[in-house]
Amino acid sequence: MKQETIQRIKQFTIDRDWDQFHSPCNLAKSISIEANELLECFQWSDTDFNIDKVKEELADVIVYCVDMVEKLNLDVDEIINAKMDSNEAKYPVEKAKGSSKKYNEL
Amino acid sequence: MKQETIQRIKQFTIDRDWDQFHSPCNLAKSISIEANELLECFQWSDTDFNIDKVKEELADVIVYCVDMVEKLNLDVDEIINAKMDSNEAKYPVEKAKGSSKKYNEL
Amino acid sequence: MKQETIQRIKQFTIDRDWDQFHSPCNLAKSISIEANELLECFQWSDTDFNIDKVKEELADVIVYCVDMVEKLNLDVDEIINAKMDSNEAKYPVEKAKGSSKKYNEL
Amino acid sequence: MKQETIQRIKQFTIDRDWDQFHSPCNLAKSISIEANELLECFQWSDTDFNIDKVKEELADVIVYCVDMVEKLNLDVDEIINAKMDSNEAKYPVEKAKGSSKKYNEL
Repeated sequence: MKQETIQRIKQFTIDRDWDQFHSPCNLAKSISIEANELLECFQWSDTDFNIDKVKEELADVIVYCVDMVEKLNLDVDEIINAKMDSNEAKYPVEKAKGSSKKYNEL
Repeated sequence: MKQETIQRIKQFTIDRDWDQFHSPCNLAKSISIEANELLECFQWSDTDFNIDKVKEELADVIVYCVDMVEKLNLDVDEIINAKMDSNEAKYPVEKAKGSSKKYNEL
Repeated sequence: MKQETIQRIKQFTIDRDWDQFHSPCNLAKSISIEANELLECFQWSDTDFNIDKVKEELADVIVYCVDMVEKLNLDVDEIINAKMDSNEAKYPVEKAKGSSKKYNEL
Repeated sequence: MKQETIQRIKQFTIDRDWDQFHSPCNLAKSISIEANELLECFQWSDTDFNIDKVKEELADVIVYCVDMVEKLNLDVDEIINAKMDSNEAKYPVEKAKGSSKKYNEL
């Protein structure tokens, strides 16, 4: 994501004085709420979905994720790389390849 | 997010031959599931949370969002800017400033 | 559900002095969290699921729903019948039969 | 819940020929989607909520839970009592009283 896109998201909140509502808990609720509007695109069919609606709802999830990263002063590359370190350890290629099992069942 | 972080997420899936499981619907389910593991950090308290756990779960949400962006060949800046256009129209500053009301109640 | 099952759920909370944590908002978070543990049973496959796990997670969702009904002093038959009145009006049989479309697209 | 309320929920689905859409996975998605419409009532405030909206959304969650119980031919008292057995073992009163910690942290 471009820095100017992140800046636009931040400015949107500042302009509306909405930082007061963006507690980490409220942002976590918001991410879940938007994730489920995304899920609703696939409620009755896995394959027959409205791509424009999917784009909108996925964007909403990502916007709230950016808000949370900013709110908690996180470095997105750092938290993702730390999680990928952990994922790679939990799902070694030789065990996990081609399997959808959870790590504790592999 | 750096291009190399996105590349690492993509390579993780390729190495494990997991693209077969990454239907848009399964990714939408996964985003919601991880969003709720994030929400669980705030289940009984808004303020007393484990920041390390929050980082891990937020990273999981973002990783699946990246997977979905890639799966659907979307441009993340494009979908976010389109949504921000819509948000700015729905929530004009003069009406929305300092209010947590939904646009249809403003 | 039998009255004694409802009573058991209520007594469980009373015995642990957990009513203090059961704000309507915390219960709403809890319902969503458990709903997503249920959804996790179907994360990568619609058909290959562990029925014992499904039973446990569905039970968790229902327990928190009972907690919320009790917390807000609601009558479960009343709220469901009111909602079914609304559903029946939004989805008339002649229009909705055999269709998974949302009411505003019928 | 009264037997006639459960019967009304079942008949609603039968009349619309909707059983074809009610796979366990689709019902799990639906429970999560409705749980998040309920959560939306508390998105920005824990205490200032619309009780009529809460009733409607909670009813929606419960209706899909009833659908899933019926779909999988479960006995609701049986699955809840089995889960309460497990909860009581995981959260013994003397350890859990007054604490919101998870069982593995008690």
